[in-house]
Amino acid sequence: MIKKKLGIAGLGTVAQGVLEILRDNGAIIAARTGFELEVARVASRTPRSDIDLGGAAFSTDLDDLIADAEVDIVLELIGGETVARDFIEAALTAGKPVVTANKAVIASHGNLLLSRNTSAPLRFEAAVAGAIPIIQAIQSGLVANRFEHVVGIINGTCNYILTAMQEQGASFTDALARAQELGYAEADPTFDVGGIDAAHKLAILLALAFDVPFSFDDIAIDGITAITPEDIQYAAELGYRIKHLGIARQTDAGLEARVHPTLVPEQQLLASVNGVLNAVLVKTDAAGDTMFSGPGAGGLATASAVLSDVLAVAGAPVERAERRAQDLKILPVADTVSAHYLRIPALDEPGVFAQVANTLSRYGISIEAAIQKEPHGTAEQPTVVAIVILTQVTREGDMAAAVAELNELPQVAGEIARIRVESLG
Amino acid sequence: MIKKKLGIAGLGTVAQGVLEILRDNGAIIAARTGFELEVARVASRTPRSDIDLGGAAFSTDLDDLIADAEVDIVLELIGGETVARDFIEAALTAGKPVVTANKAVIASHGNLLLSRNTSAPLRFEAAVAGAIPIIQAIQSGLVANRFEHVVGIINGTCNYILTAMQEQGASFTDALARAQELGYAEADPTFDVGGIDAAHKLAILLALAFDVPFSFDDIAIDGITAITPEDIQYAAELGYRIKHLGIARQTDAGLEARVHPTLVPEQQLLASVNGVLNAVLVKTDAAGDTMFSGPGAGGLATASAVLSDVLAVAGAPVERAERRAQDLKILPVADTVSAHYLRIPALDEPGVFAQVANTLSRYGISIEAAIQKEPHGTAEQPTVVAIVILTQVTREGDMAAAVAELNELPQVAGEIARIRVESLG
Repeated sequence: MIKKKLGIAGLGTVAQGVLEILRDNGAIIAARTGFELEVARVASRTPRSDIDLGGAAFSTDLDDLIADAEVDIVLELIGGETVARDFIEAALTAGKPVVTANKAVIASHGNLLLSRNTSAPLRFEAAVAGAIPIIQAIQSGLVANRFEHVVGIINGTCNYILTAMQEQGASFTDALARAQELGYAEADPTFDVGGIDAAHKLAILLALAFDVPFSFDDIAIDGITAITPEDIQYAAELGYRIKHLGIARQTDAGLEARVHPTLVPEQQLLASVNGVLNAVLVKTDAAGDTMFSGPGAGGLATASAVLSDVLAVAGAPVERAERRAQDLKILPVADTVSAHYLRIPALDEPGVFAQVANTLSRYGISIEAAIQKEPHGTAEQPTVVAIVILTQVTREGDMAAAVAELNELPQVAGEIARIRVESLG
Repeated sequence: MIKKKLGIAGLGTVAQGVLEILRDNGAIIAARTGFELEVARVASRTPRSDIDLGGAAFSTDLDDLIADAEVDIVLELIGGETVARDFIEAALTAGKPVVTANKAVIASHGNLLLSRNTSAPLRFEAAVAGAIPIIQAIQSGLVANRFEHVVGIINGTCNYILTAMQEQGASFTDALARAQELGYAEADPTFDVGGIDAAHKLAILLALAFDVPFSFDDIAIDGITAITPEDIQYAAELGYRIKHLGIARQTDAGLEARVHPTLVPEQQLLASVNGVLNAVLVKTDAAGDTMFSGPGAGGLATASAVLSDVLAVAGAPVERAERRAQDLKILPVADTVSAHYLRIPALDEPGVFAQVANTLSRYGISIEAAIQKEPHGTAEQPTVVAIVILTQVTREGDMAAAVAELNELPQVAGEIARIRVESLG
């Protein structure tokens, strides 16, 4: 087991997420990778007695993290731009690897920070699209490809607001107010609804996909404040949804880099990415169209990405060190559980449905919904109806036994179709 | 520049894809990573004079790849099970790292192959979901998470057939025949439509997400041959789509591992993944719900994943070695191109539409579609109509100038809304 000690700058939601994941999942991470992560020191201007630091030392001075010889890897989770940039630079200069979730710093100062001739790496998976490992996908998974475009819903606030306007016919103002109530928009929402935040992220995606310097200042930026419910409705009539996109695209003339509301064909997968979800659509020469979606923000989701970077800079192997990091058994299929769809071809006689329901009931199977379809008889079976049933979640073995019994009923006039139903919630 | 020499076993579509990508993108891969990849030797039972090996040596004996001291990394792209397993084992024993796209070998023999005490790594990103870097996402991007479920559309043949049945009301037999015509199904489609192929992939996802041994034999398998257009239609009436899923899920009782047709709520993103596309939905404690979609098969797409593994076992850095691997310029926004949506509030007078069309025409802007909405006047402007136009793709600078001119027309009665339209095709 190799031990790595972390120094965390900041005590906001992402830092708290890192502490929480290490507390809950530290043992399983160690079993998987062979690396034990421990938070040695936390630094934040304001002490927080309500947060469990798990035994880590605490400083109000960020420089203590760099000076602490115990700290192997520094996590910059303070946000903001100037202080964070200076701190990252100082840590790298001191030879400490840095992991940051700070999109503004990378978008505006990434060229400086990444061109430094130190051996210490700087990683920033959490800076774009939160939990989604999109930076890894571009830099490693798709490394052998030429990129044609990278197009993303990369601001959850904008996507929440546009989705609410779409689904409830709300005005921008009302949808924004609701987003603020729910914590999906800041009191001052300018950075999000004005497109700045998405442009920071696009600057990073652009640089990585097209091998160009970080170029935040070259991105054309439009926000969503001018979108009206009327436009959303007309777009829908024409077969489109309005999404706030960051678009990085190579054309024959050069690279396009722009952030703006966009009509997207409703059959496009990206058009179905709703609420606070983020998604990034990537088109390349070899891999074709790939899409990556998930939560773009949130303490735990962002911390998940931060910790994947931490393990990478620590040198943890990607391959599992231990294939029994958890002691889990695979259940016999009879013990698995699902809701079910049943289509029962039955004689069109009174009392058939009651008999079916009784049989299911005896196996403890509840009916969630049922429809009886009009007779669709053939010359041989002129009075057959289809009884279609959705059940509640049931043990597979019970369902198999119930269906076997239903098949024996004299009123059942053919093979019963049985298909599982999963809500995937 | 570090040079790595590859030995490729097999000359099928994936091997050809690897040769093609290295020919087209070898220079950019080298500039990005600092690693130059060269195919030193290809081995295949049947010589193919029609394939450009780019100067590589050729053998009909697979063992030559292992014996060739020049070969740094072996690519197992022959498929099948027993010969491939023995070949991989021999290569690893000889100390050569192996990259494979072979799901059957990993699903059935992964425990043996990965538990070997050799220093040579074995990687298999291409074995699941083709171009989608899902194995990397599970093993690295989400390494700090506990997994709740991994649910995938992981067989493109099944998804193509079910999509055709859904969209065209086709029978299973007709949809299968069409899939065979298009090359999306084999002459003997049993492995795909019977669910075996999906079960191989699920065995891999299950092992990686839940830290258990590869357990192909414990997976419950159902195919799609019994699905009828009737069931698809009834499911649609109830708000569901039928998808063939591989499901690995942790419950309080243990792990579920099953492959079967499934009713999925139509608002679920997975329900919108159509045609030959693959998608994997992952739910974890910290990252929440993430989804990864893309082409699950095809020579180039699979080769893209193979080469990402090759670079990883070669030790290529994930961070870009060179931020100017391509010399691309970012265009001024005026030179970018998009289709546009315009909503023009106009007086309800004869000839207004013609005037708008004339103005657009003078800037070279073609109209793709237009609707004129009924008057929605206010007390002050009782006769205002909305003219809604979709244009064809246009230079941004021309569109901005045209809209500025339209705004000056006396018949235009308010601010013109202008939103870009992207097909993302």
